Amino acid sequence: MTSPAFENDLKAAIRAIPDYPKPGIIFRDITTLLGSARAFRRAVDELVQPWAGSKIDKIAGIEARGFIIGGAIAHQLSAGFIPIRKKGKLPHKSVRIAYSLEYGIDEMEMHEDAVTPGERVILVDDLIATGGTAEGAVKLLRQMGAEVVSAVFMVDLPELGGADKLRALGVNVRTLVSFEGH
Amino acid sequence: MTSPAFENDLKAAIRAIPDYPKPGIIFRDITTLLGSARAFRRAVDELVQPWAGSKIDKIAGIEARGFIIGGAIAHQLSAGFIPIRKKGKLPHKSVRIAYSLEYGIDEMEMHEDAVTPGERVILVDDLIATGGTAEGAVKLLRQMGAEVVSAVFMVDLPELGGADKLRALGVNVRTLVSFEGH
Repeated sequence: MTSPAFENDLKAAIRAIPDYPKPGIIFRDITTLLGSARAFRRAVDELVQPWAGSKIDKIAGIEARGFIIGGAIAHQLSAGFIPIRKKGKLPHKSVRIAYSLEYGIDEMEMHEDAVTPGERVILVDDLIATGGTAEGAVKLLRQMGAEVVSAVFMVDLPELGGADKLRALGVNVRTLVSFEGH
Repeated sequence: MTSPAFENDLKAAIRAIPDYPKPGIIFRDITTLLGSARAFRRAVDELVQPWAGSKIDKIAGIEARGFIIGGAIAHQLSAGFIPIRKKGKLPHKSVRIAYSLEYGIDEMEMHEDAVTPGERVILVDDLIATGGTAEGAVKLLRQMGAEVVSAVFMVDLPELGGADKLRALGVNVRTLVSFEGH
Protein backbone atom coordinates (compact mmCIF):
# COMPACT_ATOMS: atom_id res chain seq x y z
CA MET A 1 0.00 0.00 0.00
CA THR A 2 2.96 2.28 0.64
CA SER A 3 5.31 3.33 -2.14
CA PRO A 4 8.68 1.55 -2.45
CA ALA A 5 10.56 4.84 -1.91
CA PHE A 6 8.58 5.59 1.25
CA GLU A 7 9.10 2.05 2.54
CA ASN A 8 12.84 2.31 1.88
CA ASP A 9 13.04 5.62 3.75
CA LEU A 10 11.30 4.10 6.76
CA LYS A 11 13.43 0.96 6.62
CA ALA A 12 16.56 3.10 6.62
CA ALA A 13 15.33 4.73 9.83
CA ILE A 14 15.02 1.37 11.65
CA ARG A 15 18.15 0.05 13.33
CA ALA A 16 19.10 -3.61 12.94
CA ILE A 17 20.62 -5.15 16.07
CA PRO A 18 22.21 -8.52 15.25
CA ASP A 19 22.04 -11.38 17.75
CA TYR A 20 19.51 -9.64 20.00
CA PRO A 21 17.84 -10.80 22.17
CA LYS A 22 19.69 -14.01 21.28
CA PRO A 23 22.14 -15.35 18.67
CA GLY A 24 20.77 -15.59 15.14
CA ILE A 25 17.98 -13.05 15.65
CA ILE A 26 18.11 -9.61 14.03
CA PHE A 27 16.17 -7.25 16.27
CA ARG A 28 14.37 -4.44 14.42
CA ASP A 29 14.81 -1.42 16.70
CA ILE A 30 12.23 1.23 15.85
CA THR A 31 13.49 3.72 18.45
CA THR A 32 15.65 5.28 15.72
CA LEU A 33 12.54 5.76 13.58
CA LEU A 34 10.64 7.27 16.52
CA GLY A 35 13.60 9.55 17.18
CA SER A 36 13.55 10.95 13.66
CA ALA A 37 11.01 13.78 13.58
CA ARG A 38 10.45 13.30 9.86
CA ALA A 39 10.20 9.50 9.87
CA PHE A 40 7.89 9.37 12.91
CA ARG A 41 5.62 12.06 11.49
CA ARG A 42 5.40 10.38 8.09
CA ALA A 43 4.84 6.90 9.53
CA VAL A 44 1.96 8.02 11.76
CA ASP A 45 0.42 10.10 8.97
CA GLU A 46 0.57 7.13 6.62
CA LEU A 47 -1.04 4.85 9.21
CA VAL A 48 -3.98 7.19 9.84
CA GLN A 49 -4.53 8.24 6.23
CA PRO A 50 -7.02 5.46 5.29
CA TRP A 51 -9.24 6.46 8.22
CA ALA A 52 -9.60 10.17 7.46
CA GLY A 53 -13.33 10.87 7.47
CA SER A 54 -14.22 7.49 9.02
CA LYS A 55 -15.75 7.13 12.44
CA ILE A 56 -13.18 5.49 14.71
CA ASP A 57 -14.14 5.41 18.38
CA LYS A 58 -11.02 4.06 20.02
CA ILE A 59 -7.41 3.18 19.39
CA ALA A 60 -6.17 0.20 21.41
CA GLY A 61 -2.41 0.29 21.95
CA ILE A 62 -0.38 -2.68 23.14
CA GLU A 63 2.14 -1.99 25.91
CA ALA A 64 4.73 -0.51 25.61
CA ARG A 65 5.81 0.61 22.11
CA GLY A 66 2.22 0.40 20.87
CA PHE A 67 1.45 3.19 23.34
CA ILE A 68 3.75 5.64 21.54
CA ILE A 69 2.30 5.07 18.09
CA GLY A 70 -1.24 4.47 19.33
CA GLY A 71 -1.27 7.70 21.34
CA ALA A 72 -0.29 9.67 18.25
CA ILE A 73 -2.92 7.92 16.11
CA ALA A 74 -5.67 8.39 18.71
CA HIS A 75 -4.97 12.11 18.95
CA GLN A 76 -4.75 12.54 15.19
CA LEU A 77 -8.06 10.73 14.60
CA SER A 78 -9.72 12.38 17.63
CA ALA A 79 -10.41 8.92 19.06
CA GLY A 80 -10.13 7.67 22.64
CA PHE A 81 -7.18 5.51 23.66
CA ILE A 82 -7.35 2.07 25.31
CA PRO A 83 -4.21 0.70 26.97
CA ILE A 84 -3.77 -3.07 26.69
CA ARG A 85 -1.30 -3.95 29.41
CA LYS A 86 0.61 -6.80 30.93
CA LYS A 87 -1.32 -8.31 33.83
CA GLY A 88 -1.49 -6.51 37.14
CA LYS A 89 -0.76 -3.02 35.83
CA LEU A 90 -4.26 -1.58 35.41
CA PRO A 91 -5.88 -0.03 38.50
CA HIS A 92 -9.57 -0.75 37.78
CA LYS A 93 -11.58 -3.94 37.15
CA SER A 94 -10.08 -5.64 34.14
CA VAL A 95 -10.68 -8.48 31.75
CA ARG A 96 -7.77 -10.79 31.02
CA ILE A 97 -6.73 -13.16 28.26
CA ALA A 98 -3.84 -15.58 27.91
CA TYR A 99 -1.72 -15.37 24.75
CA SER A 100 1.13 -17.32 23.23
CA LEU A 101 4.71 -16.15 23.26
CA GLU A 102 7.54 -17.84 21.40
CA TYR A 103 8.09 -19.90 24.54
CA GLY A 104 5.19 -20.33 26.89
CA ILE A 105 2.23 -18.07 27.56
CA ASP A 106 1.53 -14.77 29.26
CA GLU A 107 -1.56 -12.72 30.06
CA MET A 108 -2.72 -9.27 29.03
CA GLU A 109 -5.49 -7.08 30.43
CA MET A 110 -7.86 -4.31 29.48
CA HIS A 111 -10.22 -2.34 31.71
CA GLU A 112 -13.68 -3.91 31.58
CA ASP A 113 -15.25 -0.53 30.77
CA ALA A 114 -12.62 0.50 28.21
CA VAL A 115 -14.89 -0.27 25.28
CA THR A 116 -18.64 -0.09 24.71
CA PRO A 117 -20.26 -2.82 22.56
CA GLY A 118 -20.31 -1.79 18.91
CA GLU A 119 -17.44 0.69 19.16
CA ARG A 120 -15.11 0.75 16.17
CA VAL A 121 -11.55 0.13 17.31
CA ILE A 122 -8.14 0.08 15.59
CA LEU A 123 -5.47 -2.05 17.25
CA VAL A 124 -1.93 -0.62 17.17
CA ASP A 125 1.50 -2.06 17.87
CA ASP A 126 4.97 -1.30 16.58
CA LEU A 127 5.71 -4.68 15.01
CA ILE A 128 3.98 -7.94 14.17
CA ALA A 129 5.99 -11.16 14.29
CA THR A 130 4.25 -14.41 15.26
CA GLY A 131 1.16 -12.41 16.12
CA GLY A 132 0.43 -14.04 19.46
CA THR A 133 0.07 -10.74 21.29
CA ALA A 134 -2.05 -9.11 18.58
CA GLU A 135 -4.29 -12.18 18.32
CA GLY A 136 -4.89 -12.08 22.08
CA ALA A 137 -5.69 -8.37 21.89
CA VAL A 138 -8.17 -8.86 19.04
CA LYS A 139 -9.94 -11.60 20.98
CA LEU A 140 -10.06 -9.49 24.13
CA LEU A 141 -11.51 -6.51 22.26
CA ARG A 142 -14.12 -8.66 20.51
CA GLN A 143 -15.01 -10.36 23.79
CA MET A 144 -15.95 -6.90 25.10
CA GLY A 145 -18.08 -6.20 22.03
CA ALA A 146 -15.70 -4.02 20.01
CA GLU A 147 -15.63 -4.08 16.23
CA VAL A 148 -11.93 -4.39 15.34
CA VAL A 149 -11.88 -2.48 12.06
CA SER A 150 -8.15 -2.80 11.52
CA ALA A 151 -4.85 -3.76 13.12
CA VAL A 152 -1.91 -1.56 12.15
CA PHE A 153 1.81 -2.01 12.66
CA MET A 154 4.87 -0.11 11.49
CA VAL A 155 6.85 -3.30 10.86
CA ASP A 156 5.86 -6.73 9.55
CA LEU A 157 8.04 -9.84 9.74
CA PRO A 158 5.92 -11.80 7.22
CA GLU A 159 7.82 -15.08 7.50
CA LEU A 160 6.64 -15.39 11.08
CA GLY A 161 3.01 -15.41 9.95
CA GLY A 162 1.44 -12.97 12.39
CA ALA A 163 -0.31 -10.80 9.80
CA ASP A 164 -1.75 -13.92 8.14
CA LYS A 165 -2.93 -15.17 11.52
CA LEU A 166 -4.89 -11.94 12.04
CA ARG A 167 -6.31 -12.02 8.52
CA ALA A 168 -7.54 -15.57 9.21
CA LEU A 169 -9.53 -14.04 12.08
CA GLY A 170 -11.13 -11.62 9.60
CA VAL A 171 -9.04 -8.61 10.66
CA ASN A 172 -7.94 -5.98 8.17
CA VAL A 173 -4.16 -5.67 8.62
CA ARG A 174 -2.03 -2.72 7.55
CA THR A 175 1.74 -2.51 7.87
CA LEU A 176 4.27 0.00 6.53
CA VAL A 177 7.48 -1.95 6.06
CA SER A 178 8.42 -5.64 5.82
CA PHE A 179 11.67 -7.36 6.68
CA GLU A 180 12.45 -10.86 5.47
CA GLY A 181 13.86 -13.27 8.02
CA HIS A 182 13.41 -12.94 11.75
CA MET B 1 -2.61 28.54 32.86
CA THR B 2 -5.73 26.55 31.98
CA SER B 3 -9.21 27.93 32.58
CA PRO B 4 -11.15 26.66 35.63
CA ALA B 5 -13.92 25.27 33.39
CA PHE B 6 -11.42 23.36 31.27
CA GLU B 7 -9.67 22.03 34.35
CA ASN B 8 -12.99 20.88 35.82
CA ASP B 9 -13.88 19.08 32.59
CA LEU B 10 -10.58 17.23 32.62
CA LYS B 11 -10.87 16.43 36.33
CA ALA B 12 -14.30 14.96 35.74
CA ALA B 13 -12.75 12.64 33.14
CA ILE B 14 -10.23 11.24 35.63
CA ARG B 15 -11.36 8.31 37.77
CA ALA B 16 -10.60 8.28 41.49
CA ILE B 17 -9.79 4.83 42.87
CA PRO B 18 -9.82 4.88 46.68
CA ASP B 19 -7.33 2.79 48.65
CA TYR B 20 -5.21 1.94 45.61
CA PRO B 21 -2.50 0.78 45.51
CA LYS B 22 -2.82 0.78 49.30
CA PRO B 23 -5.21 1.99 52.03
CA GLY B 24 -5.48 5.75 52.37
CA ILE B 25 -4.24 6.54 48.86
CA ILE B 26 -6.60 7.87 46.19
CA PHE B 27 -5.24 6.74 42.84
CA ARG B 28 -5.90 9.15 39.96
CA ASP B 29 -6.67 6.89 37.02
CA ILE B 30 -6.21 8.79 33.76
CA THR B 31 -7.27 5.85 31.55
CA THR B 32 -10.81 7.26 31.61
CA LEU B 33 -9.48 10.59 30.32
CA LEU B 34 -7.46 8.83 27.61
CA GLY B 35 -10.55 6.83 26.67
CA SER B 36 -12.62 9.96 26.12
CA ALA B 37 -11.95 11.16 22.57
CA ARG B 38 -12.84 14.71 23.49
CA ALA B 39 -10.89 14.89 26.77
CA PHE B 40 -7.76 13.26 25.32
CA ARG B 41 -7.81 15.52 22.27
CA ARG B 42 -8.27 18.66 24.35
CA ALA B 43 -5.64 17.69 26.90
CA VAL B 44 -2.97 17.03 24.27
CA ASP B 45 -3.87 20.18 22.34
CA GLU B 46 -3.59 22.24 25.51
CA LEU B 47 -0.21 20.72 26.36
CA VAL B 48 1.29 21.47 22.93
CA GLN B 49 -0.26 24.92 22.49
CA PRO B 50 2.58 26.95 24.10
CA TRP B 51 5.09 25.34 21.71
CA ALA B 52 3.36 26.12 18.43
CA GLY B 53 5.95 27.81 16.25
CA SER B 54 8.86 26.90 18.56
CA LYS B 55 11.63 24.57 17.58
CA ILE B 56 11.32 21.41 19.67
CA ASP B 57 13.62 18.59 18.61
CA LYS B 58 12.48 15.72 20.77
CA ILE B 59 9.79 14.63 23.19
CA ALA B 60 11.02 12.32 25.95
CA GLY B 61 8.24 10.10 27.31
CA ILE B 62 8.51 8.16 30.56
CA GLU B 63 7.38 4.53 30.43
CA ALA B 64 4.53 3.60 30.25
CA ARG B 65 1.71 6.18 30.40
CA GLY B 66 4.10 8.94 29.34
CA PHE B 67 4.47 7.06 26.05
CA ILE B 68 0.78 7.55 25.19
CA ILE B 69 0.74 11.30 25.78
CA GLY B 70 4.32 11.82 24.60
CA GLY B 71 3.69 10.00 21.32
CA ALA B 72 0.74 12.27 20.59
CA ILE B 73 2.72 15.40 21.48
CA ALA B 74 5.74 14.36 19.40
CA HIS B 75 3.59 13.76 16.34
CA GLN B 76 1.65 16.98 16.80
CA LEU B 77 4.84 19.07 17.16
CA SER B 78 6.66 17.11 14.41
CA ALA B 79 9.37 16.20 16.90
CA GLY B 80 11.19 12.93 17.41
CA PHE B 81 10.30 10.70 20.36
CA ILE B 82 12.71 9.37 23.01
CA PRO B 83 11.56 6.48 25.22
CA ILE B 84 12.83 6.57 28.79
CA ARG B 85 12.42 3.03 30.05
CA LYS B 86 12.87 0.85 33.07
CA LYS B 87 16.28 -0.79 33.04
CA GLY B 88 16.97 -3.69 30.71
CA LYS B 89 14.23 -2.92 28.18
CA LEU B 90 16.15 -0.97 25.54
CA PRO B 91 17.98 -2.98 22.87
CA HIS B 92 20.92 -0.64 22.11
CA LYS B 93 23.69 0.89 24.23
CA SER B 94 22.06 2.91 26.97
CA VAL B 95 22.85 5.35 29.71
CA ARG B 96 21.33 4.69 33.11
CA ILE B 97 20.44 6.71 36.21
CA ALA B 98 19.13 5.72 39.63
CA TYR B 99 16.07 7.53 40.93
CA SER B 100 14.10 7.61 44.16
CA LEU B 101 10.77 5.91 44.59
CA GLU B 102 8.55 6.29 47.64
CA TYR B 103 10.37 3.29 49.08
CA GLY B 104 13.84 2.56 47.77
CA ILE B 105 15.38 3.29 44.41
CA ASP B 106 15.12 2.02 40.85
CA GLU B 107 16.93 2.72 37.60
CA MET B 108 15.84 4.12 34.25
CA GLU B 109 17.58 4.11 30.90
CA MET B 110 17.77 6.01 27.64
CA HIS B 111 19.64 5.08 24.47
CA GLU B 112 23.03 6.81 24.45
CA ASP B 113 22.36 8.19 20.95
CA ALA B 114 18.77 9.25 21.65
CA VAL B 115 19.69 12.90 21.97
CA THR B 116 22.31 15.13 20.38
CA PRO B 117 23.94 17.83 22.55
CA GLY B 118 21.98 21.07 22.35
CA GLU B 119 18.70 19.50 21.28
CA ARG B 120 15.61 21.06 22.79
CA VAL B 121 13.57 18.43 24.59
CA ILE B 122 10.21 18.40 26.37
CA LEU B 123 9.78 15.73 29.05
CA VAL B 124 6.30 14.14 29.27
CA ASP B 125 4.56 11.96 31.82
CA ASP B 126 0.95 11.51 32.85
CA LEU B 127 1.28 12.63 36.47
CA ILE B 128 3.77 14.22 38.81
CA ALA B 129 3.72 13.22 42.48
CA THR B 130 6.99 13.22 44.46
CA GLY B 131 8.86 13.84 41.22
CA GLY B 132 11.58 11.25 41.72
CA THR B 133 11.09 9.74 38.26
CA ALA B 134 10.88 13.08 36.49
CA GLU B 135 13.94 14.39 38.33
CA GLY B 136 15.93 11.33 37.23
CA ALA B 137 14.78 11.81 33.65
CA VAL B 138 15.78 15.49 33.62
CA LYS B 139 19.23 14.61 34.93
CA LEU B 140 19.65 11.84 32.40
CA LEU B 141 18.65 14.13 29.52
CA ARG B 142 20.96 16.91 30.69
CA GLN B 143 23.81 14.43 31.18
CA MET B 144 23.49 13.66 27.46
CA GLY B 145 23.56 17.35 26.58
CA ALA B 146 19.86 18.01 26.03
CA GLU B 147 18.26 21.34 26.86
CA VAL B 148 15.13 20.43 28.84
CA VAL B 149 12.86 23.30 27.81
CA SER B 150 9.85 22.03 29.75
CA ALA B 151 8.35 19.13 31.65
CA VAL B 152 4.63 18.61 31.11
CA PHE B 153 2.12 16.45 32.95
CA MET B 154 -1.63 16.05 32.77
CA VAL B 155 -1.98 15.76 36.54
CA ASP B 156 -0.18 17.43 39.44
CA LEU B 157 -0.37 16.32 43.07
CA PRO B 158 1.15 19.54 44.43
CA GLU B 159 1.27 18.47 48.07
CA LEU B 160 3.84 15.84 47.14
CA GLY B 161 6.21 18.51 45.88
CA GLY B 162 7.34 17.04 42.58
CA ALA B 163 6.65 20.10 40.45
CA ASP B 164 8.52 22.30 42.93
CA LYS B 165 11.42 19.86 42.89
CA LEU B 166 11.70 20.24 39.12
CA ARG B 167 11.39 24.02 39.30
CA ALA B 168 14.28 24.04 41.80
CA LEU B 169 16.32 22.38 39.04
CA GLY B 170 15.44 25.27 36.72
CA VAL B 171 12.86 23.32 34.71
CA ASN B 172 9.75 25.00 33.34
CA VAL B 173 6.83 22.85 34.53
CA ARG B 174 3.37 22.78 33.01
CA THR B 175 0.42 20.75 34.33
CA LEU B 176 -3.27 20.74 33.41
CA VAL B 177 -5.08 19.70 36.57
CA SER B 178 -4.23 19.54 40.27
CA PHE B 179 -5.65 17.32 42.98
CA GLU B 180 -5.15 18.06 46.64
CA GLY B 181 -4.05 15.19 48.85
CA HIS B 182 -2.36 12.07 47.60
